[in-house]
This record gives sequence, C-alpha cells and structure tokens, in this order.
Amino acid sequence: MNSLNPTTKSVRIFDTPEVQDFLNTVAGFDKTEGNERAKEILHRLLSDLYKLIDDFDVTPEEFWQGVSVLNALGAETQYGLLAPGLGFDHYLDMRMDAEDAARGLAGGTPRTIEGPLYVAGAPESEGEARLDDGSDTDAEAMWLTGQVRDTQGQPISRAKVEIWHADSKGNYSFFDPSQADFHLRRTIYTDADGRYRARSIIPSGYGCPPDSPTQQVLDLLGRHGQRPAHIHFFISAPGYKHLTTQINLAGDPYTYDDFAFATREELVVDARRIEDASEASDRGLEGPFTEVVFDIELAATSETELQQRHKRPRALEDG
Amino acid sequence: MNSLNPTTKSVRIFDTPEVQDFLNTVAGFDKTEGNERAKEILHRLLSDLYKLIDDFDVTPEEFWQGVSVLNALGAETQYGLLAPGLGFDHYLDMRMDAEDAARGLAGGTPRTIEGPLYVAGAPESEGEARLDDGSDTDAEAMWLTGQVRDTQGQPISRAKVEIWHADSKGNYSFFDPSQADFHLRRTIYTDADGRYRARSIIPSGYGCPPDSPTQQVLDLLGRHGQRPAHIHFFISAPGYKHLTTQINLAGDPYTYDDFAFATREELVVDARRIEDASEASDRGLEGPFTEVVFDIELAATSETELQQRHKRPRALEDG
Repeated sequence: MNSLNPTTKSVRIFDTPEVQDFLNTVAGFDKTEGNERAKEILHRLLSDLYKLIDDFDVTPEEFWQGVSVLNALGAETQYGLLAPGLGFDHYLDMRMDAEDAARGLAGGTPRTIEGPLYVAGAPESEGEARLDDGSDTDAEAMWLTGQVRDTQGQPISRAKVEIWHADSKGNYSFFDPSQADFHLRRTIYTDADGRYRARSIIPSGYGCPPDSPTQQVLDLLGRHGQRPAHIHFFISAPGYKHLTTQINLAGDPYTYDDFAFATREELVVDARRIEDASEASDRGLEGPFTEVVFDIELAATSETELQQRHKRPRALEDG
Repeated sequence: MNSLNPTTKSVRIFDTPEVQDFLNTVAGFDKTEGNERAKEILHRLLSDLYKLIDDFDVTPEEFWQGVSVLNALGAETQYGLLAPGLGFDHYLDMRMDAEDAARGLAGGTPRTIEGPLYVAGAPESEGEARLDDGSDTDAEAMWLTGQVRDTQGQPISRAKVEIWHADSKGNYSFFDPSQADFHLRRTIYTDADGRYRARSIIPSGYGCPPDSPTQQVLDLLGRHGQRPAHIHFFISAPGYKHLTTQINLAGDPYTYDDFAFATREELVVDARRIEDASEASDRGLEGPFTEVVFDIELAATSETELQQRHKRPRALEDG
C-alpha cells in the first residue's frame, strides 16, 4: 500500500497557454474529421486529467503504475466489474430516476444496476420454468414467484420476465464454463393472472477475485469487493417502462454493504424456509425449500424507447 | 462516426448531497484501510467523471460503449500507446521541464517521451556497436554517431548511451517476434573523447494498427496515428541528469506531425546520404549509407534520484 507517494514539488502549468493550446490539438479541434461530441467529451476528460496531474503532482512513476492497472483491467475484461465498484452503474440509475421524476414517469418497482453478466437468448417458457438442472447438489432449492402488475395493481399478463442468477458458489453460467449453457437463466412470460413461477436454487453472493486488478483498486480505497446473494431481472411489457432490477435476499451479511451499490430498500426480499411436505409437493418439490416472493410493478409509458432496455454490449446479443 | 449522439435531457444531480455523500463512500473516505493519497486522487477523478456525465448528459449507451473501448485497449495492452496519443507523455515532459527550470536544472539536450517499447538488458559494448544483424535486407545502412558533452562542451567519457529503434517496417524486436532478441537495441559506453558509434539501419516510422482500439479513439478525434522515423535514447553518466530522449530524422512527412507529440525542434536531425566508397570503408561498410550525427549535452546534478530514469514498468526490467 506504499506504492503511491506524496511529492513535494509544486509546479503548475495547466493554465498556461501552451498547455491549453496543446489540449485543443490533442482533442482534434483543428481537424475537420471525427465526431464533434466525442471531441468535446474527450477535451473535457483530458482537461480534467491534466489538471488532476498538476494539482496532485502526479509523478511519472505513479502515472505509469496507473497505466499498468488500466492494461490489467482490460486484459481481464474487468471494466464492467470495476464500473459498479466505483459507483458508475448506481450513478447512472440515480440520473435515470431523476429523469423519470422530471418527466412524470416515476413509480413502480425501482430499478437497479444490471451488472456485466447478462446473456441474451435464454430459453423461454409460459408461466413457469425450472432454472437449475440439478447439478448443483450443494444448493438449497428455491421457489421464486411473484405477480407483475401496473401501478394501479392490475395484473399484466404476457409480461416478459428474464431472470438470471449465480449458483451456490457465486458463479454464473457462460462465465463459468463448468455450468451448462443458460443454467440459471430463463425467460418466463406471465400467465393470465400476471404471475410467474421459477424453480431454481438459492444463489450465493460472491466477491471480486482477490488478485484481480479490480480488487487491487478497491484495496487502495480500503474497500471489500463482496456482493450479497441476489437475483437479476429484466421485466418488460408493451405500454410499460422496461425495468432492469435485482433483488437481494434478506439476511446476507453484505445485503446492506454491496461493493456494487445495487441494494435498494424496496428490493430486499425475505427468503422463507418451508419444511412442510405438502407445501413442497404442491410445487413439485421433494423436500424442504426456500420461497422468495417478488411482486413487480411496472410504470406505464407510451414512449417506445423507454419500453426497451438501453443498448449496451451484452454476451450473445446482436448490435 | 455516428455512434455518439447528443441527447436532449437536462437533469443535473452532481451537486446534490446524495451524490456528494455517495462519492465519499465510493472513495472509501469512511474506511480506515487503504492509501490516503489514492483515495484523494480517485475521489477527484470520480468527481470529475461523474460531473462530466452530468454536464454532457452521457447516456448509459455511451457509457457502456466507452467501457467496451477501455476493455479492448487493455486486452491489447494499448494504454501505453494511447497515452502518448492523448498527449500525456508530452504533458509529463512539460511538467518535468518546468520543474527543472524552477530548480535551476534546465539546460542540455531536451528530453522527450520514452514510448512503451524499451526493453531492458540489451548487450553492452565500449565506444561502438552494430545494432542490426543484417536480416533486414530492405533497409538502408545507417551510421549513427555523436559526442556526449557537459553543458560547457567538455566530453563525458564512459557515458551510457542506450539506443533502440524500429526496423524498416516500423517494428521493434521483442514486440515483433520475427526479429531476434535485442535486434536494434544496444548499450554503448562513450570512449575517452565522449564519442559513440553505432552501425545500424534507417528505421521507418509506423502507425497505430488501423483496427486497433487506440486508432478507434483517434478516429473519433479526426486524428491519424502515425509517427515519423525516430531513434530512442537513454543517456546517463554519474553526476549528470538522466536524459530520456529521441531524435526524428528530418524529411519524414510526419516529422512535425507526430501523433505521439514527441517532436522537438532541437531533436530533428539530418540524415545525410553518403555514396563515397572510401567514406564507407572507413566505417567498415560496403556501400552507400546514411549518416546521422546526434551530439548530446547532459546537465550536471548532484541529486542521485535525477541521475536515474524514473521507475516505470518496462519489459524485462526488475521492479
């Protein structure tokens, strides 16, 4: 932890005409090609970084240590993991919440971050699905169910409920090659009463790999890289705002201390253990299980752009 | 070039207590572990980035496009290539020049950027070395020579002159596996008269790979990614400031339009073609060659820290 050292130098060159002219050149302001918005954004970003170097007397040694971390993060495709750790995903949510409020589109179940582990193309079914294939023998059986409603409480049938979550080791199919494709990933359309039912297993929380560059950054900040047990959802239906959200299972030590800042009070859900044999057999289960109920309210909108998830590079998703 | 789109939204949340408190949490200000300087720098960096997102209404789509570019840059270990393209290396040089001036340590041959392609451990020799192994049959023979002096013009014997440069295709050994180890890389100690002599080949300039993420960023700025033909130097001697520099060969179309901003007027050197057979045989060469003369002046310093190159992760270099 002693690799970053304060210095005693005090030159300040950022505000000189030489540096300001240089920034204009670097940002391509004298070039007719390129993208004007990208130039403006990069000019601002570079100005901020140059000024930071000046104000903190960042040494070449510190700068090149930083460059090494940037390379390592990309080599392990971890910017999508570091971003929520540095609060960007939650900050973008805060901005979207504020936009919704400003446009009179607030209401419904709150959004929270998507995370980097969604995979497009999961098998689809009507009303009900089993997400696990029985291979995770350490896992507790989970019965996950709920109703999708509008903000007046009316059920929404044929809502598309996409669910993905980790296994009992905290790993996700596709990113963990030991799991079958689309294990613990399903798309369920709600029934006539707006309900969905999913048989699965209780996921475990997980942590950033201890030796990863993401954890290296978090270590500098004195922070852990743990997430509580959680289940991801995309929920959509024609005429309603697309909802990206996740639930945290109550009682996890990290429920209110998520390194990715995804927890929202309304999204902490009880996990209720049921040992009654008839309750199990009613659901086609053999033994004790844990029931998780998550009802979802969607806010209406006529804006078709808001009825879809925003574009983002995602595994197996086109364009 | 139309992947970044302006938006018409206008929420501003950066200055709210919620966001400011959140930034303090993200930066680990409430944690006792970690590195205080890293926390301060990251808090500033994140504040700048959050404010930029707010001011430019950066959309989630734009943000995640950026994240993809960050991953791609690291996957190809290109942050050391993008950094000079965005002017950071030259800016750090400008700061070191200003520090030298403030401390009365200006003078001597100017520094310029190191670039990411130095490799430690090149073979050493006294007074003279051949850098090429004859394998680059497209190349023009180069005779590179000069004298290392102090700022009063007195020769410095036993100065350490490390030289590295590209081949006639613009490629560097170690990074180009088709070349032998340490091809076009040598360390020469000056003779009693402060002189060094290197037989080599004229290097070619080069460009960022057209499909590389670095070029993708430069394209957004309307900028090319070309460097003129150049030769890198580290020069050091006890009692003198370590000098990191490079020369550009005059006449290259990119001599004054280097994407990496390394060109300095004093470092543009003539390349003189010599066809006289006796001049060639005097130097142990068979036919016409191009002579490049680069004399170097080192500034004296008693500060041992300044007598060494700054630390930076470098290929084959310890710690």
